[in-house]
Amino acid sequence: MAEKKQGGAGLRGQVAGKTALSTVGKSGSGLTYRGYDIKDLAKNCQFEEVAYLILKGELPKQSELESYKAKLKGMRGLPQALKEVLERIPANAHPMDVMRTGTSMLGNLETEESFSEQEDKADRLLASLPSIICYWYRFSHDGERIETETDDDSVGAHFLTMLRGEAPNALHEEVMNTSLILYAEHEFNASTFTARVCASTLSDLHSCVTGAIGSLRGPLHGGANEAAMDMIAQWSSADEAEKAIMGMLERKDKIMGFGHAVYTESDPRNEIIKEYAKKLSDDVGDDTLFPVSVRVDDVMKREKGLFPNADFYHASAYHFMGIPTKLFTPIFVMSRLTGWAAHVFEQRADNRIIRPSADYVGAEPRKVTPIEQR
Amino acid sequence: MAEKKQGGAGLRGQVAGKTALSTVGKSGSGLTYRGYDIKDLAKNCQFEEVAYLILKGELPKQSELESYKAKLKGMRGLPQALKEVLERIPANAHPMDVMRTGTSMLGNLETEESFSEQEDKADRLLASLPSIICYWYRFSHDGERIETETDDDSVGAHFLTMLRGEAPNALHEEVMNTSLILYAEHEFNASTFTARVCASTLSDLHSCVTGAIGSLRGPLHGGANEAAMDMIAQWSSADEAEKAIMGMLERKDKIMGFGHAVYTESDPRNEIIKEYAKKLSDDVGDDTLFPVSVRVDDVMKREKGLFPNADFYHASAYHFMGIPTKLFTPIFVMSRLTGWAAHVFEQRADNRIIRPSADYVGAEPRKVTPIEQR
Repeated sequence: MAEKKQGGAGLRGQVAGKTALSTVGKSGSGLTYRGYDIKDLAKNCQFEEVAYLILKGELPKQSELESYKAKLKGMRGLPQALKEVLERIPANAHPMDVMRTGTSMLGNLETEESFSEQEDKADRLLASLPSIICYWYRFSHDGERIETETDDDSVGAHFLTMLRGEAPNALHEEVMNTSLILYAEHEFNASTFTARVCASTLSDLHSCVTGAIGSLRGPLHGGANEAAMDMIAQWSSADEAEKAIMGMLERKDKIMGFGHAVYTESDPRNEIIKEYAKKLSDDVGDDTLFPVSVRVDDVMKREKGLFPNADFYHASAYHFMGIPTKLFTPIFVMSRLTGWAAHVFEQRADNRIIRPSADYVGAEPRKVTPIEQR
Repeated sequence: MAEKKQGGAGLRGQVAGKTALSTVGKSGSGLTYRGYDIKDLAKNCQFEEVAYLILKGELPKQSELESYKAKLKGMRGLPQALKEVLERIPANAHPMDVMRTGTSMLGNLETEESFSEQEDKADRLLASLPSIICYWYRFSHDGERIETETDDDSVGAHFLTMLRGEAPNALHEEVMNTSLILYAEHEFNASTFTARVCASTLSDLHSCVTGAIGSLRGPLHGGANEAAMDMIAQWSSADEAEKAIMGMLERKDKIMGFGHAVYTESDPRNEIIKEYAKKLSDDVGDDTLFPVSVRVDDVMKREKGLFPNADFYHASAYHFMGIPTKLFTPIFVMSRLTGWAAHVFEQRADNRIIRPSADYVGAEPRKVTPIEQR
């Protein structure tokens, strides 16, 4: 009995299904999407190519990529009823609640009636999730009803244009592109597994994605880059950061953005985004946030042997582009939508309802006592 | 290797955690909530007593029950912004999408800021889910903005009053009460497991419940009573039903409302709701739907050795009370909210993030080919 229950907690190490989408932490290559190393993809592809790879199985030819980008561009507009819903969500709402509600509402207006529609529904979400978060953000914070049908070439530029009111420069578009590639897919993490459990009942794509957003909202899952930002923003110099980190380590406080549940030696996404954080720091003439980040990184390595994960340098990178901290996790959603949807497709193609067992640790059989005798 | 993967599909038989909430299919008693047999609870308790048992651990004393019912009664009203959202959902939307969106929107307006609020947030959902579905239904179908703060004594009566515009008679209130007890909790089914995966990231209760609704929406999970209703409504006599069922069995069509993933001999909830379906049939002077149902039941036993599950006689019972078929699964939500929320509390109290593994069956490592050479 003891052996059978060994893996019970959190299903760690238990196989819950098959996937052809990614490998995480395999020797020789830290992270692959459909066989391609994340570094190769980040260096040589646009995010839309990677989305195409994840959702449709292979990297697109030039003509396929052009049609795909044109298709996504045509799907950026929001239905009037959805805009009216977003206008009713207060400015102090949790942005992940906005993403969850926007996705759910879209499911009422553009319901997936049959699985034959799944690719179109996924593409629609890929194109419109940036519109959802920016429409709400700009309306609730600035009172502006923004135009979401922009002419931007990429998902990343579309997001930055709506958020900041002007088209981004080439460096910012490139950083967004890379960031979206890095977060796109990560095997059976908790939000993806949520999507697969939902898909296993043969529910619709909007339900699966809505559920996944809810799980990504949890502080043990998404949100590490927001927490890292809040942390590093406190310090005005690398020396101050080092002193504070040493104190936190002594008090055994949790330091956000370091270590990983699956990776043991390094997070393959880190070096890519770190390089961009450096470029952006130089670009804006920063002399605090990046040096602070590097010092925290060094101290964590020296004191604990821990490495920064994908989230740590994302914090300063996003910040240098003027993205409000509370929108960091919604960017994760815009990207991971591709992985979630592809996992839903996989689950549907070879499905059995996901229904594990539980160890019962409750009361022994008993009889209801009449209420007046309790 | 083969042995390790044996249980992979759907995690069947794999322990994913502990629970003190229910046992399903244990010998001697088919279904217990916190040690009490479902038949004992259905016969001797109000739904609110059972909700209290599930959410707070023990059956309430008389005074505790009275305070609890008063508390729930005070939580039936909907915020104006939520009403305005529901008014923007079209009449042809899937009612489970409405439940999902209503719950998600409520999470924006009344966010669970700390786990210390969890019981209040669960009670609020228990009280307001009937308001959400009825407000939308009556507005979209009848153009009426109904008052959701009714004076009804129970959750079941509250629902029927809002739906039908007048307070129910004693029999109808009793049937709703029993039905809500029968559906309240069922261990690690797919929707409950969805809620637990979401809870394991330490996300908020509205995210967990929103995700669970999305999973219950799937035709392999909720919705069997709707499908059973659509089936039995086709036939105008028991003989016609028998002939049709024989044909369906020959063609190996799926017959909804029979058999169960966990129960092997009978579903303990069936005999209870069947008795009420009979009473309601007599009450309305029905001479078709109940006899048709009984004949289908008999034929399935004779031909396949299969037994009706909780859903089969729920179909005619709900129908006799004038409930539209498409609202059957939302009633399931109003009840199961108790089980979902209690599982979230359990997960939080002894948490490890739920993150299983996957078998990789995808492409071997490969290099990105420049786009112009693809």
